[in-house]
Formats: sequence, C-alpha cells, structure tokens
Amino acid sequence: MRINHLLSLAAFVVILPTSPVTAVANDPLPSWNDTAAKQSIVVFVERVTEEGSSDFVPVEERIATFDNDGTLWSEQPYYFQLAFALDRVKAMAPDHPEWKTKQPFKGVLEGDLDAVMAGGKKSLIEIVAATHAGMTADEFEQIVTDWISTAKHPKTGRLYKEMIYQPMLELLTYLRANGFKTFIVSGGGIAFMRPWTEATYGIPPEQVVGSSIKTRYEVRDGKPVIVRLPEVDFVDDKEGKPVGIHSHIGRRPILAAGNSDGDWQMLQYTTIGHSPSFALIVHHTDGEREWAYDRQSHIGQLDKALDDAKQKGWTVVDMKQDWKTIYPGE
Amino acid sequence: MRINHLLSLAAFVVILPTSPVTAVANDPLPSWNDTAAKQSIVVFVERVTEEGSSDFVPVEERIATFDNDGTLWSEQPYYFQLAFALDRVKAMAPDHPEWKTKQPFKGVLEGDLDAVMAGGKKSLIEIVAATHAGMTADEFEQIVTDWISTAKHPKTGRLYKEMIYQPMLELLTYLRANGFKTFIVSGGGIAFMRPWTEATYGIPPEQVVGSSIKTRYEVRDGKPVIVRLPEVDFVDDKEGKPVGIHSHIGRRPILAAGNSDGDWQMLQYTTIGHSPSFALIVHHTDGEREWAYDRQSHIGQLDKALDDAKQKGWTVVDMKQDWKTIYPGE
Repeated sequence: MRINHLLSLAAFVVILPTSPVTAVANDPLPSWNDTAAKQSIVVFVERVTEEGSSDFVPVEERIATFDNDGTLWSEQPYYFQLAFALDRVKAMAPDHPEWKTKQPFKGVLEGDLDAVMAGGKKSLIEIVAATHAGMTADEFEQIVTDWISTAKHPKTGRLYKEMIYQPMLELLTYLRANGFKTFIVSGGGIAFMRPWTEATYGIPPEQVVGSSIKTRYEVRDGKPVIVRLPEVDFVDDKEGKPVGIHSHIGRRPILAAGNSDGDWQMLQYTTIGHSPSFALIVHHTDGEREWAYDRQSHIGQLDKALDDAKQKGWTVVDMKQDWKTIYPGE
Repeated sequence: MRINHLLSLAAFVVILPTSPVTAVANDPLPSWNDTAAKQSIVVFVERVTEEGSSDFVPVEERIATFDNDGTLWSEQPYYFQLAFALDRVKAMAPDHPEWKTKQPFKGVLEGDLDAVMAGGKKSLIEIVAATHAGMTADEFEQIVTDWISTAKHPKTGRLYKEMIYQPMLELLTYLRANGFKTFIVSGGGIAFMRPWTEATYGIPPEQVVGSSIKTRYEVRDGKPVIVRLPEVDFVDDKEGKPVGIHSHIGRRPILAAGNSDGDWQMLQYTTIGHSPSFALIVHHTDGEREWAYDRQSHIGQLDKALDDAKQKGWTVVDMKQDWKTIYPGE
C-alpha cells in the first residue's frame, strides 16, 4: 500500500510540471511549447472572452490581423510570390522571344537572379506587370490555383502551401473558436493570396487584405469581367497596413501578428493607446528546422519592431524555443 | 355538430386562399405581399440552399450585395449623406466666417440649394472636402454617430436611420438565416455608413463597401491614427461597383440588389453568364407612402436597368404593390 501510494504520488509529480492529462487533451495549441509566449496568448484570449471581466471585448470587435510572409508561411530565400512570378516568366517565355535578350527577363530565364535584382524596384515592377496583369481576375485566379497546387520549394521539396506554420494554424483556429474574426494583412498581392487562403488557413477571400494593382470592369464578348491593369494601386506594407486595415475592415484589431519591420505600424496601430490588445512577433530563430534571420536580413528584416517589443510588452515568439513543430505533418 | 363542422370548414376555406396558419407563423418575409417578387426570392433561396440540388451553392459562396441609398433606405429629396454634409457646414460655420460670402458654403448657410448645385460636381467636392476630411477616422466616426442618432428627415420627421425599408431588413435576415453573407455596396461614403450599419442592418463595418477619400497613417501626440485627406480615392458607383466588390470581397456575388442605373453594372456582373444568380431592383412606385420616381429622376435614376430587367429576368420590386410596410413600426 505504501509503495503504491508512493508510486502514484511520483506519477503525479512527474506529470504535474509539464501539464495535467486533461489539459493536454483539451490543449488548443498542441504544437506550442509551454513557454511564456503560449501562456501570454492564452491569458489574453481568456481575458477578453470572459464575460463580466473589465477586459471583456464583444464578439464583433474581436478582430485579429495576421501578416502572411514569414508569419503564416515561410519567406526564404525570397517571398514565395516572387517564385510564382519567376515561374510565370518561364512559362510565358515562348510567347515572348524578346525576353531572351531583355533584362530583367533575360536574368530570370538564365537563372541569374543577381542580374534581375540589379534592376531594383523597376525590374520587379516590370516582372509583376508582365506576370500579374493583362488578364481577367478569373484567369489570374486560375493561374494562381494551378501554381499553388503544384509548385514546390527548391530547398524543402515541400509544396509552398505546405510550408505554413502548424502553430499559427492552431492559433488561428483557437482565436476563431473564441469568437475572433481572423484576417490576413500582407504586403503580398491580395489576388495572389485569395485563391488559396480559405482552404489553407480557413480565411476567406473577403478577409484578405494585401497589395493590389488597378482593375477595370468590362463586358468582354458579352461577359462581365474584371481586367487586371499593369499599374500599382495600393502597397499594403509598413504605414500601408493600418491604411489597408482601415479601408477593408474599418475596425482597429485587438490582436495583430507579424514578423518584420513591415508589420511595425500594424502592431503600433493595434496596441498603442488601445487596451486590451495583443501584438505577436514571430522571430525566426531556427536555422535548422526553418531559417534564422532578423536585423540584417534582406527579406523579413526585423529590427525596429524587435526593439519595440520589449518596451511595449509585445510577445516575441522564438521559433526554436516556443514551437514543437514548424510545418504540418512533421 | 353539423353546424360546427360547417363553421370549421368555412374557417378552413377562408384561411386557405391567403396562406395556411403555419406558413404565416414561419413567414420570413411578413412585410412582403404574396406576389411574384416575393415568390421569386423564396424560390431562389430554396434552390441554392437545397443540398443535392444542381443549383446548390456552398455557404462560403453565398455572397449577397446590396446598394444602400434607395435600396435599403430612402434617398429623397437628396441622398441623406448630403443632408449630413449640409448640417456639418452649418455646424462648422462659426469657425469659418469666410463661408458667409463664398459659394458653395454661402448657399448652404442661406438654405439656397440651387446656388449650391449651380457649382456642379466641383462644389460638391468642396463640401465633401470641408466636412469629411481633415480629422482622424475616429473623430469622423464620432461625428457621424452623433448625427445619425439625432438627425431627422424634414418631410417625415423620422430619424434618417428609421427611414430604412422593413421588407429589406427582413430580406437581409432571411438571407443570413440561409447562410448568406450580406454586404453593402454603395456609392455613399464607406466611412459615413460603417458607424451605424451593424446596429441598423446587421451588416458589420468589414462588410461595407463604398466610396472613399484617401487616408494616411500617422502617430499624433504619441497615438496612432488614420487621418482623412481631402482627396477622392475611389468612387463606388456604376463600373466602380464590380471593382469595389472585387477589391473588398474578392468573390462574385450570387445575389445583388439595387434601385438605379448606378447599380446596373453590379447587377450585370452578378448575373450575366453566372448561374444560379439573382438580381433585384427596388422600383420606387409609391408616391404616397414613400416616393415615386425612375427614368427622369435626378436622384436614383432608373432607366437602363429597368429596360434590362425584363430581358434578363431580374426581379423588379414594385414598392406599392409588393410591400405591405415601408418603414419599421408603421
């Protein structure tokens, strides 16, 4: 009897420091280690959803906004939308013999990305115009759908759409289960994301905010279509993010998540002078399972926002420490 | 016994021709007369929601878009947002002594609307710039909220926000009960509508599409704000409506409702070449209970769209014939 008692006590002691069995079964964030980051999320969600609490937020105001590149899926060695654009240049090249000798297209076709990048912003705009405009919205949607269903990342061999973060999927689901409406607010193209965000993240097209090119309504061959024009309309990055949120959502989020200085203003807008509110930064610290980068990175530079995190009480997620899993099914 | 029997039979016969008691109790559109318009709505909703039917539409694609002025609320003798702007000019006049001698403000202050209108579009833009820009988004929201809570229509004496159509409120509720997501797509100002559409129509800010002025993100006295600029950004009217739908919703509606040629392109975009789909036109035929106008009207001109309705099978709602009630609580 005494031995049994001791054994069960020992079992109790062993189980307790991690988490009780019932809590594991109900854990809404199983891919998160039980560290401060996870705890701060759960504490916030419980605070704003507990009726009668002074921090209670009505369901309709539970707006959560998420950056995409580097926050919901990977973004190295360069934004996946650029991979899409480069693939499109290659696919379209047979109809454009002149591209063989004309930068930035020549560089793309020869796999010389340095030559492409040497042209700077102007080159990128030329590539976007050639690959993202000139067709109808329905046609572009089909092109993106075909690409996202098949294109694979050269390093991981995974489909790009499988390089999404399992812990963030759980966070999205957890928030929605608690009455939050989840939005993407990304510097990426709104029309590039919408065809697949619902199946991938459970975020429908009307809850996606992103950069856009101009469009025009036309009746073509008797059919009403939206035509995509080679002209930038809106850049949903940096100070553009609060503007995009205001334009598309019309409410200030109470939770925002990002991973770079491009998200800094969104995190400010969400939290400063507004309580309860919550800002989360995904810090890429895992060079083994994903990538490790921050202050000096060309893609996803995280510098000012990292400095601000400490002062402002923003939650920094250390991928290596805080996440059990990176990608689904690992 | 025989008399009782006859009486109950008579009661049955009397009740039957209108509608059986159970149907009345469950009628989702009680303010609609039992005419072809109502029937066509119910038939469409049943078609697209019946699982296994060839016209079944998954819940996430049940997008319904509604014009606001003249479709969800009245718009005579001029758009209610103009009444708001004129009231604002009067409220702001003490800080603008120069307006006493300067058109179009002079005309507003003297109640001389002809003088205002003589300046055409330029005058209207000047009034919008003076009354809708120069403050933060939060400040503008408060100004609109104060106005909409108190301002009354000079003819009816009702609050403007009570001049909404009871049958359309029922239609919105009926659609949502059947899995539709309801949006406003209006030529009116997006920021003018959002502060009150949720309480009034059950349509949250993020489901409101409208015309907009440019905005800028700023940190002012340490607080992040959206500043409203005196420059038109987007006009959500005519061919702008499909563009606004594409930008904000990113899906083609399967049901659209309007009342004027400003809605023509939205109705085309929704229905032509896309089935199942449904277009509804509110035809203002009731000069007694509301207003009667169509082809020659300056406000809410309905001409091309009325011609198209017959050819294209769009449902025209004759307010006088089809609606039992116009405004709530009548």
